[in-house]
Amino acid sequence: MKFVHETLPQRVRFASGAAAEALAAEVAAQDVRRLMVVAGTSERDLADRITAGLPVVHRHHDVAMHVPLELAQRARAAAAEWDADAVISVGGGSTTGLAKAIALTTGLPIIAVPTTYAGSEATPVWGLTENAVKTTGTDPRVLPRAIVYDAELTLSLPVELSVASGLNALAHCVDSLWAPRADPLNQALALEGARALRVGLPQVVAHPDAVEGREDALYGAYLSALSFASAGSGLHHKICHVLGGMFNLPHAQTHAVVLPHVLAFNAPGVPAAEQRLAEALGSRTAVDGLAELRSQLKAPHSLRDLGMPSAGIEEAAAAVVSAAPAGNPRPVTLEAITELVRNAWEGTDPR
Amino acid sequence: MKFVHETLPQRVRFASGAAAEALAAEVAAQDVRRLMVVAGTSERDLADRITAGLPVVHRHHDVAMHVPLELAQRARAAAAEWDADAVISVGGGSTTGLAKAIALTTGLPIIAVPTTYAGSEATPVWGLTENAVKTTGTDPRVLPRAIVYDAELTLSLPVELSVASGLNALAHCVDSLWAPRADPLNQALALEGARALRVGLPQVVAHPDAVEGREDALYGAYLSALSFASAGSGLHHKICHVLGGMFNLPHAQTHAVVLPHVLAFNAPGVPAAEQRLAEALGSRTAVDGLAELRSQLKAPHSLRDLGMPSAGIEEAAAAVVSAAPAGNPRPVTLEAITELVRNAWEGTDPR
Repeated sequence: MKFVHETLPQRVRFASGAAAEALAAEVAAQDVRRLMVVAGTSERDLADRITAGLPVVHRHHDVAMHVPLELAQRARAAAAEWDADAVISVGGGSTTGLAKAIALTTGLPIIAVPTTYAGSEATPVWGLTENAVKTTGTDPRVLPRAIVYDAELTLSLPVELSVASGLNALAHCVDSLWAPRADPLNQALALEGARALRVGLPQVVAHPDAVEGREDALYGAYLSALSFASAGSGLHHKICHVLGGMFNLPHAQTHAVVLPHVLAFNAPGVPAAEQRLAEALGSRTAVDGLAELRSQLKAPHSLRDLGMPSAGIEEAAAAVVSAAPAGNPRPVTLEAITELVRNAWEGTDPR
Repeated sequence: MKFVHETLPQRVRFASGAAAEALAAEVAAQDVRRLMVVAGTSERDLADRITAGLPVVHRHHDVAMHVPLELAQRARAAAAEWDADAVISVGGGSTTGLAKAIALTTGLPIIAVPTTYAGSEATPVWGLTENAVKTTGTDPRVLPRAIVYDAELTLSLPVELSVASGLNALAHCVDSLWAPRADPLNQALALEGARALRVGLPQVVAHPDAVEGREDALYGAYLSALSFASAGSGLHHKICHVLGGMFNLPHAQTHAVVLPHVLAFNAPGVPAAEQRLAEALGSRTAVDGLAELRSQLKAPHSLRDLGMPSAGIEEAAAAVVSAAPAGNPRPVTLEAITELVRNAWEGTDPR
């Protein structure tokens, strides 16, 4: 047992149906008085509603995917112009990302109010895009000081997107079990996250308008981000990154298709973690548990259906092997990865 | 799911057999250059050994239980005199406690190197004793910035003391499941701690000179302190506090005797947590799992054996009821607590 684990400071307020009250409590706890609210136009009304009565000096709705540098610079200028002393972000990953871009240069504390399962609110990772090139980095200043989770705010997230995003979160949990900085602590967080997602996601599908399942899913998404930020990126994410880049596949769906095959490949190399993941997924084996969950969620099955050409399998496998992460529990050979990608392309059952 | 959970910043280095290297890495990471080493006389040689080569300006061996105020003042004066920029504590709870007393007024960062399962290194709680009265408080400044866990340093801890201290840690985990600030996050940490203690403690008994069991036990003790600091003090700790104060019973042994009875009492009120604790303890029910573990460890059975008079049962029960913690999962009635204390006094099997 040799590891270095860094626990980062953050206050999390879980408050279903009570985002406004939790936000007011957090603003009081931090004693901030000049708030800049960041929210995309589609979350504008929602943001207005939950920040009503707070000392807001500026509302910023100029949000876009991947945080273009010009948008970041405009938002930073607005924060300076209005002399803001804190940023409240209301939205998904792009919105949190813009708030982080402000914090990166100004050091302003962020209070994040997520409306999706993106998880960026639980990590110190920032990203900025300039001339179509995205730069990412890690800085403790961009980690939101506090998060307000209100599952009611995710009720408008369509079921299909909730499932894809939830399986993406589950992939973060599973990949954390063997990632380069995997340790017993982030493993415990990952397993807790997997457990919550297994409970929550089927309820989201069965009762999209009920808050209970969405609450568990949101809690699981938070843990998935925590564990992934701590453990780093494992084999699963390398594969999805390569496939996404080569064939322009949809992000969350690619994760959903590839995950069972990476799990089936790596599970024999981590028998103790596999057994605990099986428990968390409520099944005899981890592979079975994931298959049962995917079937309940009607998750996508094959890379072929997502539009990947069969001719790309070997090229993709070669690229994965050359980018293989350190410490994968089983040898990342060209033969093994070619078979894995082929299975994902065909959509075979890994059981 | 409504809760507020505060995660505190701390770096943990698990490095069995490599405390010196981990300490050097931590000193370099913090860029501190004038170290004050705090260690009791019995850990003096050990502390010298693992800090050899580091920029130590002062070695302080004036340590005593419960942190008497005069000792704290002398230690603070020494830190000022030697212009220390960090404190390294090597030892158990009393030593960590003295380092915290220094940090409380000076703000100096602490690097804690624990040699027992006391767990103080993972909490922001400080204590000081003046005229036989102990004052405790919570302050983020006293939370060690980093911990170096080297299970080899616990090899000299006698088996009986390891077991008592380990069961005390397990009591922290179990009591966290229903304590006033219990939430899903500290519950997950508590269950992970219980799992590690269940694996580690029997190995400490079976192979006292092997590092493996002590490693799991130390990891479990860390998690028990984390979860307890977060969740607060539940019914079990109130009972032990009352009994300890009234009859001057030995601390860790009292915990070991009382825990199964509190678990049997509260378990029906928290069925989901009970099932997860059962899993963590590797048994069908949590009560069974604890009984099996206690039997492997030859844990003490009755308050009678620890010297408590039978005449004290009713008085103790009344005191517990009047100090009952908020939110206990079952009603804390005089009748129920009298029966619980009587069972613990007699040492009945709660199964």
